[in-house]
Amino acid sequence: MTINRQILLVSRPKGEPTLDNFHLAAPELPELGEGQVLVRNFYLSLDPYMRGRMNDTKSYAPPQPLDTVMIGATAGEVVESRHPDWQPGDAVTAMFGWQEYGISDGSNLRRIDVARVPMSVYLGAAGMPGVTAWYGLNRIIAPKAGETVAVSAASGAVGSVVGQLAKRAGCRVVGIAGGEQKCTYVVETLGFDACVDYKAGNLDEALRNATPDGIDGYFENVGGAVFDAVLKNLNPHSRIALCGMISGYNGEPIPLKYPALLLTNRVRLEGFIVTEHMDIWPQALTALADAIAAGELRYRETMAQGIENAPSAFLGLLKGENFGKQIVRLV
Amino acid sequence: MTINRQILLVSRPKGEPTLDNFHLAAPELPELGEGQVLVRNFYLSLDPYMRGRMNDTKSYAPPQPLDTVMIGATAGEVVESRHPDWQPGDAVTAMFGWQEYGISDGSNLRRIDVARVPMSVYLGAAGMPGVTAWYGLNRIIAPKAGETVAVSAASGAVGSVVGQLAKRAGCRVVGIAGGEQKCTYVVETLGFDACVDYKAGNLDEALRNATPDGIDGYFENVGGAVFDAVLKNLNPHSRIALCGMISGYNGEPIPLKYPALLLTNRVRLEGFIVTEHMDIWPQALTALADAIAAGELRYRETMAQGIENAPSAFLGLLKGENFGKQIVRLV
Repeated sequence: MTINRQILLVSRPKGEPTLDNFHLAAPELPELGEGQVLVRNFYLSLDPYMRGRMNDTKSYAPPQPLDTVMIGATAGEVVESRHPDWQPGDAVTAMFGWQEYGISDGSNLRRIDVARVPMSVYLGAAGMPGVTAWYGLNRIIAPKAGETVAVSAASGAVGSVVGQLAKRAGCRVVGIAGGEQKCTYVVETLGFDACVDYKAGNLDEALRNATPDGIDGYFENVGGAVFDAVLKNLNPHSRIALCGMISGYNGEPIPLKYPALLLTNRVRLEGFIVTEHMDIWPQALTALADAIAAGELRYRETMAQGIENAPSAFLGLLKGENFGKQIVRLV
Repeated sequence: MTINRQILLVSRPKGEPTLDNFHLAAPELPELGEGQVLVRNFYLSLDPYMRGRMNDTKSYAPPQPLDTVMIGATAGEVVESRHPDWQPGDAVTAMFGWQEYGISDGSNLRRIDVARVPMSVYLGAAGMPGVTAWYGLNRIIAPKAGETVAVSAASGAVGSVVGQLAKRAGCRVVGIAGGEQKCTYVVETLGFDACVDYKAGNLDEALRNATPDGIDGYFENVGGAVFDAVLKNLNPHSRIALCGMISGYNGEPIPLKYPALLLTNRVRLEGFIVTEHMDIWPQALTALADAIAAGELRYRETMAQGIENAPSAFLGLLKGENFGKQIVRLV
């Protein structure tokens, strides 16, 4: 008998989530049925969108039901198969959630090539976060060479890809990140032109200095004070890809102080969810994997170890304690 | 000698403008030069955008210089001409500003047909406000039949056209206006399906009741609390044409309380200035004049009398005291 340890959501957070909202269960795996595939999850992806699913308020996705396995993307390997298309050893990504194993009829498995790109990266730069960056940059911001593109959470899974793709498009790229270490990484390793540390205290002035020609495109991951500071530096006819507002995910809505700047600068702003644009995934995934395999797209991961540590790693992610893509290694 | 009474901006408002910001001057008209045309202005248009020009802060247009004639659209008649293309009696619109006469080389005059549409209406539904409504509705909201379109300042020059065009496109149309009298007009005369009185006190609930299927398109003229109430009732993939935020025009920026709803509803929002889209003016002006001439597009005007009363009429406009398009009759 194999034990499948898993994390259930057992209560909804009031404000900031706590470890008490989660419960580690350890059920036995059932026997595999005809046509089924058993996957061992090597890596679990932790992403800001999961915070929204913990609420039962109206949003773009139904809330995570209580006492069920937390939702999430996983990467792993087929360990047993009663399905003709899948063999033990096949590497796959899926949405098995926060657990060590997953059982599938094969329909929701995606085959990945781990010889070309490391398995965990299919949860980051070569997966949903990378496609999110690709869509927002290419389909909403659509920057022209010479324009200035800014991105918040610049060292994170999405922001790091946004900036590197914008650099490849010939833009001046300015990141916003929390702390000197992240900012140094964004400039020196990822190759952004500048990075503003929003924790350093003079955000407005630092951003103004970093964007002498103003901002033509902004990829928003955080909201709050960072969004307002960017608004003050927007150029006429700038575009905003609104991808996340993690600073307000714990319940207290954070007001936007200067919404009239969206009018005076004739801004086009689009909120988007990348899973509603499945048509662009094949093109984006190919472009991202090619760039990663060629060493032209860098990424960084923060690895937690063991399913039991997923909740604390997730709480850290919401506070920006991760540095790059937050992964939980399960093997 | 003819006296040309005119209103100068002589100081910049701190917060709410006052009559002291304006000065009535009465210079003599100069002799007409070769190639020039003298126009007597019959009507002056008062519009919310003028408030922005009174500030010297960065905006989409340069500030109105002090001690010069206030900017503004006018409609009138050629009274003297030393230009071969223009004869006394020709009806024209121009941007002569807040004064009784204007002198032009003809390049900025537009000929209008006052047999078809009354002269003053070329400053409203058949002019810039009408084109503004046409552009925001057709090019940004682009509603489908059966969708719900909401518009603020619904009895005003722009809002009244937005709603009537949306009704013709087969939409459910809900206005937001200040006071029972305006709301009655919006529903009974303009033919909107419903109108919410934002002064009645229960805006959130009233708007929810008036939009049982949510809001798919929103044309924003006012900002502030009205904008937030609309955000709470938006449908996924809704579109916002951001045209004006008059509630914040007196300096104090009004925060948007729930910006995250732009993300959760995957909203596309565009701020726009209709004078940056001159390509659509001929098409829009023709459509609007046709509809007005056919009696299918209704409008209402509030007339002040005399150039000396332009400042007080403008202050009233900023407070929503006008009912329909605010005009100053100069003859």
